[in-house]
This record gives sequence, C-alpha cells and structure tokens, in this order.
Amino acid sequence: MEKPLVGIVMGSDSDLPIMKDAAVILEELGLSYEMTIISAHRTPERAEEYARTAAERGIKVIIAGAGKAAHLAGVLAAYTPLPVIGVPILTSSLGGADSLYSMVQMPKGVPVAVVALNGAFNAGILAAQMIGTGNLKIREAIECYKEEMKAKVNEKARKLERIGYEAYLEEVK
Amino acid sequence: MEKPLVGIVMGSDSDLPIMKDAAVILEELGLSYEMTIISAHRTPERAEEYARTAAERGIKVIIAGAGKAAHLAGVLAAYTPLPVIGVPILTSSLGGADSLYSMVQMPKGVPVAVVALNGAFNAGILAAQMIGTGNLKIREAIECYKEEMKAKVNEKARKLERIGYEAYLEEVK
Amino acid sequence: MEKPLVGIVMGSDSDLPIMKDAAVILEELGLSYEMTIISAHRTPERAEEYARTAAERGIKVIIAGAGKAAHLAGVLAAYTPLPVIGVPILTSSLGGADSLYSMVQMPKGVPVAVVALNGAFNAGILAAQMIGTGNLKIREAIECYKEEMKAKVNEKARKLERIGYEAYLEEVK
Amino acid sequence: MEKPLVGIVMGSDSDLPIMKDAAVILEELGLSYEMTIISAHRTPERAEEYARTAAERGIKVIIAGAGKAAHLAGVLAAYTPLPVIGVPILTSSLGGADSLYSMVQMPKGVPVAVVALNGAFNAGILAAQMIGTGNLKIREAIECYKEEMKAKVNEKARKLERIGYEAYLEEVK
Amino acid sequence: MEKPLVGIVMGSDSDLPIMKDAAVILEELGLSYEMTIISAHRTPERAEEYARTAAERGIKVIIAGAGKAAHLAGVLAAYTPLPVIGVPILTSSLGGADSLYSMVQMPKGVPVAVVALNGAFNAGILAAQMIGTGNLKIREAIECYKEEMKAKVNEKARKLERIGYEAYLEEVK
Amino acid sequence: MEKPLVGIVMGSDSDLPIMKDAAVILEELGLSYEMTIISAHRTPERAEEYARTAAERGIKVIIAGAGKAAHLAGVLAAYTPLPVIGVPILTSSLGGADSLYSMVQMPKGVPVAVVALNGAFNAGILAAQMIGTGNLKIREAIECYKEEMKAKVNEKARKLERIGYEAYLEEVK
Amino acid sequence: MEKPLVGIVMGSDSDLPIMKDAAVILEELGLSYEMTIISAHRTPERAEEYARTAAERGIKVIIAGAGKAAHLAGVLAAYTPLPVIGVPILTSSLGGADSLYSMVQMPKGVPVAVVALNGAFNAGILAAQMIGTGNLKIREAIECYKEEMKAKVNEKARKLERIGYEAYLEEVK
Amino acid sequence: MEKPLVGIVMGSDSDLPIMKDAAVILEELGLSYEMTIISAHRTPERAEEYARTAAERGIKVIIAGAGKAAHLAGVLAAYTPLPVIGVPILTSSLGGADSLYSMVQMPKGVPVAVVALNGAFNAGILAAQMIGTGNLKIREAIECYKEEMKAKVNEKARKLERIGYEAYLEEVK
Repeated sequence: MEKPLVGIVMGSDSDLPIMKDAAVILEELGLSYEMTIISAHRTPERAEEYARTAAERGIKVIIAGAGKAAHLAGVLAAYTPLPVIGVPILTSSLGGADSLYSMVQMPKGVPVAVVALNGAFNAGILAAQMIGTGNLKIREAIECYKEEMKAKVNEKARKLERIGYEAYLEEVK
Repeated sequence: MEKPLVGIVMGSDSDLPIMKDAAVILEELGLSYEMTIISAHRTPERAEEYARTAAERGIKVIIAGAGKAAHLAGVLAAYTPLPVIGVPILTSSLGGADSLYSMVQMPKGVPVAVVALNGAFNAGILAAQMIGTGNLKIREAIECYKEEMKAKVNEKARKLERIGYEAYLEEVK
Repeated sequence: MEKPLVGIVMGSDSDLPIMKDAAVILEELGLSYEMTIISAHRTPERAEEYARTAAERGIKVIIAGAGKAAHLAGVLAAYTPLPVIGVPILTSSLGGADSLYSMVQMPKGVPVAVVALNGAFNAGILAAQMIGTGNLKIREAIECYKEEMKAKVNEKARKLERIGYEAYLEEVK
Repeated sequence: MEKPLVGIVMGSDSDLPIMKDAAVILEELGLSYEMTIISAHRTPERAEEYARTAAERGIKVIIAGAGKAAHLAGVLAAYTPLPVIGVPILTSSLGGADSLYSMVQMPKGVPVAVVALNGAFNAGILAAQMIGTGNLKIREAIECYKEEMKAKVNEKARKLERIGYEAYLEEVK
Repeated sequence: MEKPLVGIVMGSDSDLPIMKDAAVILEELGLSYEMTIISAHRTPERAEEYARTAAERGIKVIIAGAGKAAHLAGVLAAYTPLPVIGVPILTSSLGGADSLYSMVQMPKGVPVAVVALNGAFNAGILAAQMIGTGNLKIREAIECYKEEMKAKVNEKARKLERIGYEAYLEEVK
Repeated sequence: MEKPLVGIVMGSDSDLPIMKDAAVILEELGLSYEMTIISAHRTPERAEEYARTAAERGIKVIIAGAGKAAHLAGVLAAYTPLPVIGVPILTSSLGGADSLYSMVQMPKGVPVAVVALNGAFNAGILAAQMIGTGNLKIREAIECYKEEMKAKVNEKARKLERIGYEAYLEEVK
Repeated sequence: MEKPLVGIVMGSDSDLPIMKDAAVILEELGLSYEMTIISAHRTPERAEEYARTAAERGIKVIIAGAGKAAHLAGVLAAYTPLPVIGVPILTSSLGGADSLYSMVQMPKGVPVAVVALNGAFNAGILAAQMIGTGNLKIREAIECYKEEMKAKVNEKARKLERIGYEAYLEEVK
Repeated sequence: MEKPLVGIVMGSDSDLPIMKDAAVILEELGLSYEMTIISAHRTPERAEEYARTAAERGIKVIIAGAGKAAHLAGVLAAYTPLPVIGVPILTSSLGGADSLYSMVQMPKGVPVAVVALNGAFNAGILAAQMIGTGNLKIREAIECYKEEMKAKVNEKARKLERIGYEAYLEEVK
C-alpha cells in the first residue's frame, strides 16, 4: 500500500461513524491516509509521539476529530509543524458549542484549521486542498469534485422545477 | 523556604493579574506554593514534564489557569494522578464560554475541577480543601476563613441597615 | 460496612441513572461512600444538616449532582469546610448551560469543583484524587486506573489500524 | 417608621447601585420596606433565618438580587411561603446568562418570580402588584404610575414629531 | 362555580399539555381559575380586552404561557395593573432561550414575573403566593404543600439509603 | 401558467419539507411563484445568475431558505435590488443559532429580511405584504387571512372555555 | 411636506441614535417618512392605534426598533396588514440575543422582517426595496445606491493595494 | 517584488487592524502575499473574479477576514479549488458567535479552514503550514518560529519563578 499522506485520528471510537467520512472523500480524491484512535487525555504520550513523528513519516496533514473539551487537534498542533485540521464532534450537550470553541479558539502561534461540527467530509477535502498547493494533480481532482457536486445540485434543481414540490416530496418518502 | 504543596501554573503572563489571587489566599491559609508559566500549546514538553514530576516533587494539587481554547488544565491532568483545578480566564470573546467549556467538558476518566471564570481565589481555597481532607490543621484554617468572611458580610449588612442605602452609596463613592 | 469517605447526594431520584456512575468508580477504586437524595429547595434543612455534620461523620468529600437552577452543590459548600464536587445534570433546556452556570459561577470564598455535564464518573475519580492527596494507596489506585484506561484505548486503536474502519464499524453494529 | 412590607436583600454590597432602584419605586408607590445584605453562600444561616421569620415579622414579599451563581432568591424561597422576586445581576461574564439561568430555572414546587437582568425597579413594581392583589389602594397607585409613565413617553413622542431627530439628538447631548 | 381568582391564558392550544399544570396545582391549593387561549399576535384585540377587564372581573393574577417570540405575558402586563406571571414554553429551537428572553427582559415600568421554562406548575404556586400576601388561608395551604413535598423527597431518600442504587433503579424501571 | 412574482429558492432539497410552506401560503393568497434549488457554495454561478436576472424576469421578491453557514439569502441580495427574505433552517447543531446569525447579521448596505427559524410560511406572507405595498388586492387577501386566523384561534379558545382542559386534551389525543 | 410612505417608530428615545440611520438612508433614496416613539408596553393603546391606521394614512411599510424583550415590531404586525421591519437594538446584556430572538421568532401567521442588530440603515434600504416592488423609480434608486457603495469599497481596495497596510493604517489614525 | 503566494482579503477596511497580523507573520516567515478589500455583499463580482483567478495567478492559499454574517471566506471558497482560511472578526454583538458560526458551519463539499476570533496571526502561520506541505524550507521556518515562541514563554516562566508575582506585576505596569 501507498505511504499515507494524511493522518486521520480521533479521540474515541465513538467518533468513527463521523470521522470515516474523511477517509471516504480522500479515497475518492486518490489520496492515501492512515487512521487511528488517540485520546489527548487518556493516551497523551501516544498523542505526542504521533505528532512528533508524523512529518518524518511522510504525513503532510493531520485531521483530528474530538468532542466536548476537544483538545486533540490542539495537542497534536503543539508538537508538529504540519497543518492540523480539527473536526469538532457534535454531542448532546451545549449544542456542540463546547467542541467547537475548544478547537477553534487556539492561542497565537499554534493554529488549528477548524471545519464545521461533524464536518469530517470537508476536513478530507481541505486536506486535499492543502496538499494540492504543491501538487497540481490533486488540485485538478478537487476541481473535478466541485464540478460533479455542482452537477448533482443542478440535476435536483431541474427535477424540482419540472415535477413540483408535491411530487418531489412524494418521491423522496 | 518550605517545599511547595500547590503548583500554580498559567498559560501566559497575561493571566497573572487573575492567577495571583490563588497565591494570595494560599498564603493567607498558610499553604506553600510554587508558580510558573506553561503553555499547553507553545511549551508542551514542559507541560508534560511538569505534570509527570509534580507528585514526586511533593506537589499535592495543581491549579491551572488559561483562556480561550483552555487546554492547560486538561493536558496536565492527562499526565498526573494529582487533582487538577482549572481556572477559566474570561476574555473578550464569547463571554468566556470558550474558556469555560474547554476546561470543564473533560472526557470520562480524566477530570478537571473547574471553578468560576477568573475564580483563581476560589481555586486556592479549593486546593486547601483538597489537602485538608488529610490535614486537620488546614481544614481548621478554612473554617476560620469562612467565619471571617461571614463576619465581614454581616458587618456590611448591619451598616446598610443602620445608615440606609443613600448614605451607604455616598460613602462608597 | 466501612465508614463512608465520600458522600454522594443528588437533587432528585431522576438524577440517579447519572449519579450512580460516581458510586461505580468509587467502588472500583476501593473507596467507601454513602448516597442519598437531598433537594436544596424542597428539603433545605436536611441540606444544611447534611453539610454541617459531614466532616464530623468522617466524610472527606461531597459529590452533589443537580440540574437546571442547580444550587445543591453551592448550598452544601456554604455549610461545610469539605471540598464539594458539583455534577451539572444535562436537561432538555438550554443545552445544559443552566445547570453548568448555576454550579460553576460561585462567588469568592465558596468554591465548588465542577466537572462536565453528566460527569458523575469523573466526579468519583476527582473525589479519589482529593483524598489521595493524603493517602498514597488511593493515589496508586488512580495511577492503575489511568494505565488500564490507556490500555483500552490503545487496544481499540490497534484494532482499527488492523481491520480498517469498515470492518470496525461493522463489528460495532 | 412603618413596619416594612417588602424585604429587599442582596448578595453583596456591590449589588446596591442596582438594587436601590427597588427601594426608590417602593417609596414612590408608598410601600414600606427593609433592606439588607445576605449572602446565600457566605452567610447561609442568616439567609435561612431571614426567610423563616419574614412572614411572621409582617413581610409580604421578598426581593432578592444576586449575580453569577445567583442562588440567593432560591435559598430564600426554600424557607418561606412568601413570594420571592429574583433580580439577576448583570456581570461581565457570559452576558448575564449565568445570573439569569441560576435564578429562573427553579425546580417544581419552589418558584422564584424573575424579572429582567438588573431589573430591580421592576421588582419593586411587581412586589407592589403582588401586595395589591389584596389591597385596592396599592393597585390604584400602580395604575397612577402606569398613567404617568405613559404620559412621559407620549410627551417625548410629541417632541420628536415636532422638532425632528436632528434637533432632538442635539438637545440630548 | 366560584368566581375565578386566577386567569390562565396561553398563546396556542399546543401549549395546553404544559399549561394545564398550573390548573392542577391551583385546584390542589383550593384556588379558582379560568383558562383560555389568546394569541398576542393573532388575536391582539382579545388580549387587550382580557387584560383590561381582568381586574374588574375579580381576577387577582394572570398566568400567561407562550413560546418563541413570547410576547403574550408582556402584552397583558401592558394593559393591567395586576401581576402577570410568564411561563416560557420550551420549543425545539435555541434551547428555549428565545421564549425565556422574550418574556423576562421587560422594560422599566412593566414587569413580568417569569418562572422556569415549561414551569406552569410553579406559576400556579407563585399565583397562590401572590394572593396569599392578603389571604392567610392560602398562605397556610402553601405551607402545607411545602411540607408534603418535603415528605415525599425524604421518603425517596430513605428508600435509596435503605435499598441502594441498584435496587432503586431496578424498581423504577 | 401565470408569470411568477415570487422566487422560492433553497440551498438543498433537504430544506424542501420546510420551504414548501412558503408555496402553500402563496397559493392560498393567490400569488404565483417559482421554486428551485440553488446552493450558494456548490452552484455559485447559478446563484449569481438567478439573482441578476430575477427582476427583469418579473420576480418581485425572493425567498431563500438555508441552514448552518446560511449564505444563500445574502449572496442573492448582493446581486439584486429586489427584497430578499431569509428563512434560517433549524438543524441539529447550535440550536439553529448558526443559521439565524449567518442570515440576519448582514453588513450595512445589503439587507436580508429574516423570519423565524423554519418560518417559511411567514416568509410567504411577508412576500405578499411586500408586493401588497403596491397592490391593494393582495393587501386585502392578507387582511382576510388575518381574520380567518383570528377566527380559528377564537374558536379553539371558546372550545377550551366550554369543555375544560381535560376534555380538550382527551380530544386532541 | 410629502405624505410619508414609511413609518419609523422606536420603543424609547434612547434608541434614536441608532434608529435615525433609517431616516438618513430613506432621505438619500428619496422616500418620505414619519418618525415617532411608541412603547409596546408603556403606551400599548398608541401602538395599536398607530398600526391600525397606518395603511389608511398612506404608510406602506413600518420600521420598528426596540431592545431587550423587543415586542414593538410584533405588536404592530399584529394590528396591520403592512409589512413590518424589526430592528433589534443591541444592549449590554446577553450580547443582544434577547432583542434578536424577541423580534425574529414570530409565530405562524404574523411575520416580522428582521435585520441585523442595530441595523436601522439596512431597515431603511429594505423598506425602499419593498416599496420598490411596485415602483420602478425607487428600484432604480436602490440600484444606484448599490453601485455607489461598490465604488466606495473598490476605491478603498485600490488604495490599500497601492499604499500598503502600514501607510493605510497610519492615515486612518 | 516576488509573486505573491498568499492572498489576504478582508470585508472592510475596519478589519485591517486585525488582518494586518497575517501579513506580519507571513513577512517573518518569508512568504510573499498580496492584500486587498473585497466585500462578499457589496462587491460580489470582484469576490468571484478574485477567487476564480487566484490559482492561475500563482496564489496558493487565500486568507479571508470578515465579521457578523461573515460570508466572504465561503464565497471565495465556492469559486476556487485553493484552500481558504477564514478569520472571524470579533464585533460588539453576540460575543463574536455570529462571525464564527457564519464562517465555520460550511456545507458538505466546500470547506473553510477557520481559526480563532481575530486570529489573523494564526491564519498566516496556517497558510505557511499549508504551503509547507510541498516546501521543506517553509516547514523549517515554521519549526524555527515554534522554537522561538517556546523560548520566549520559557524566559517569562523563569523570570516569574525568579522574582515572584509581585515584582513581575510591578514591572509590567
């Protein structure tokens, strides 16, 4: 298998149903990745080691998903010069504001690139865009993806215009 | 000087005007402490080392103050079996909810004992209460403090009852 | 039975499914506890009496769980020199912010040590850490617990790395 | 002096510049009152005693102002059958949501009648309205007050209509 | 039937499952009431007329429940010298903050006495407390109610203490 | 078919179950409309083209529904002199505050007329009111609608007054 | 003077420094207006009368500004078939969320068109857009305004590009 | 001058005192940039054109700062395959939650990489990290920057440890 360019880590296996979306789109865009579970608070040594060695192992971007006091992305960012993308996981408390604020409000000097609550899919695209700054082929893959996405929306639009909302809603059911 | 029992750490020297309150009350309660600056994100190695060695150096409780994506308390808690008290620092954004949520919403297994926004004074009392669980003299010092505090409130109450709100407000000016 | 070291109280029996987690971990860590229901607003006298007599009855730490205008922890803290841990209970309104703010924003002089929303499990660990400041055996039990927790996360991580996310999610179902 | 019908209490003398507004309007409406400082957390015994004896001392309504973890109104309500009005004090943290939620989200069985943040003036009117349920003279005083208030707004309206916004703003400066 | 002392109004019949709680406790406390639906926005004339005539019809207190932009209580308060109790209804949006803020943040001169989100039961008690300021029998009914409530909590407490949390939870199921 | 006066657009077909309400009331009020799907972010060119050409195609008002970072209404408003009504869609995160704030906090010079979360029905009425500023027949249709709405509420009120809450709730079940 | 087409009302003269912005832009766009102070809670009869008679007096759109429990726009909307634009006024409490939620979360059937916090200027533009649906000259005035606005931004952009941020900031000082 | 690699754009020149921080750190890290003002709502065509042509002009990353309904970053992201970093600008309303939510909650397919409120400095570092994925020299510059930052914190720490908080605070004054 190809050497992974993107590291996808999550704080708990309960985040996997969300975080797998990053893998799905990276596969679609033709980018290799690795995926593991690291808890900033329960396995801090592994967090440190993962971040410290990521660059030399060939990883270009780290995607980190975590919820509540979501420190994982920040902890990784502390130990690596690589860009770290944070995916705040939506939980049942505080409307997800806890996960979002914990990730995004990083202090001067150590950024995390935060996407939407549960936005693992977009984290994958963003990772590709980052690597695409130095890789034209990947940038073209993103352009393709954007075109396909546009086509899908337009197709739905034409259908709604053609059959009207009642028939459209009926079909969706 | 006495070996410190409480470690007071803060993420930035801009937190010092708040965090010094913990020192003030610890001095008043007769508890030794040490104080330093450690950034969870800018000096992660020192955070780790501080937390790892705190217990063996004789520290009983760690007080950590930080703002925004306030990970410091959580990072220290990850590396030590000691109780860690978090002081969320109030900043100009989000009403302080960012600091509070980042500290308090810790995952299962790694608690942080969070006090009020800017509540460094109470963090000092709480540290004393914790150590007081195994030290009667300190518990008595807390009881004394509570009595003094009560006396001060009651004195103000009697004054307001005696002179009325207009005179009271006049005097305060 | 052993004399209890930790008092677990809750505002209503509807909090019991959450608050029992504190008992579970205290049992695991080998700490004796007692458990009861006290409402700060419906049984204020019992709240007062409980807090006033806790220290002399040998209680070292009080854990109090309550929701909405969650005054229980604060009321107990007013009457005792012991450390009081607050567990804000998540309800259906305001994302739990009401429970959290009511517990954590205590005035100068009377701290409550607040953990995460529904964080009764962590409240139990924190109580043990507090008592552990004067009891090496308990501190060691906490260290053990942390190691076990770490091992469990690492095991899951290795499994995910080995079988991939599709198989992992399939198994969980 | 007349026996007081309304008890105005506040958690700290720092609340007095706000809470005095309740006294001002009660004086205007011809209702006697008493005013003191009681901290739910620093002087819990006096809170209890005040609430327990208020009814027999002839108090009809209690107005309680407090900020942050604003338990004072709730604690008083726990010990008295009298209606308790809560004035949440606006502080610099959390936009005042902490004070408001701590007061208003009372459990089933023990209501607090909450007015706006810093709404001590309205608390005074509300106290008068409550006593007015059994006292026609007071109800008429309220009706008068409402008419005066209306007249003042209408006067300003006529002025603005007459001189236009530029002149109006010029005059206010 | 007895002339009603309390008017219970709500903005929509969808509020009835909540607002009926006010009626239940008023019945229990022996207070007569009337109940109707008035929308501040859809039937503004009836809102006005209801509030204008309430006092002369013998109503002593109005309880108003509404959700979202919950203006009903404020509109009624504008037209009556009687005390108006607001029950903010919890809806699916904004955690109920919309209903709460719309009711509680009334301007100087026109208070609404706000209780907890969905707190219609407490609104009934509060109405009784208000009328009780001029009626000893009602005040005694409230004292009785408080004693019964206390007894119920204490009974549950004794049971939990006796049988332990496992058996208690088993029984509840 | 009549030339459409109102354009109803939505960011995704998942918004259709909400947004169809705008169509329903426009039909009832006798106003022609068109309906389509345009994503501000996935089909930005079509957003631009739609807004640019709307006025010349005879559209008088645009209604735009979107959720989360709900830019659709703002993007359309940037390209057209027509009034744009925004319907913030309630999602599972942040209580809907994300959708609401993204729509309503428009900069000076480019307004969006925002209605309640999921308020597509009201968006339809508002569109009619706007067109009604230059069309008496439509204004009369709105007056009729308001009368019918009033009648429905009053009918429910009379029923509740007549049969009481128990029977009313029984019937609704 | 010309018969006013737009009615600008505000809850208090303290809102005038914000609300005058609506007048400024209406003047610029060549639209006549009237301006007055009406309090939904202190002068409810005048609110009703204003709204009831607005249409017959020739008013096409009402702009209403209010803060906190900002009911003014909703009360006016209840009594008129005209479109009502709400300007939530930013106050020192709750970050302005109280004013915003009170205005925007209107019930089904009675919309208010809400603009940004303190967005009186945009309310003026929106009023013009509404009237512009039936008046080509006004629509053209809006198009002109948009072009001018664009030119101003572009001029600033060219300047920043030309002189750089240091010189630009120096000049602004 | 060197061809710019990073495009810094902002919605208004009032954002410049914040956004200049991105330029400062890019200069320090040796990365060329261009800077301009583009309003998503007032100059939408220029926003489109800027984003469309950025990649072919050699720009690798776009940094966009905006406040309130902060659509700028999202609009640019819609038209370019390049990564877009969003800097939510803190304003006086809603604690900055409006700017943050508008930027971060982007829909599936079109990510924005959001940093902290007013975090333009970190946006500059993040841009460098992104370009550093394909450029070792830049990655090394980031590593250097991180070391310097660490050294500065440690120096402050040693000073505080040496002179104590009183002297430290005295010096800062």
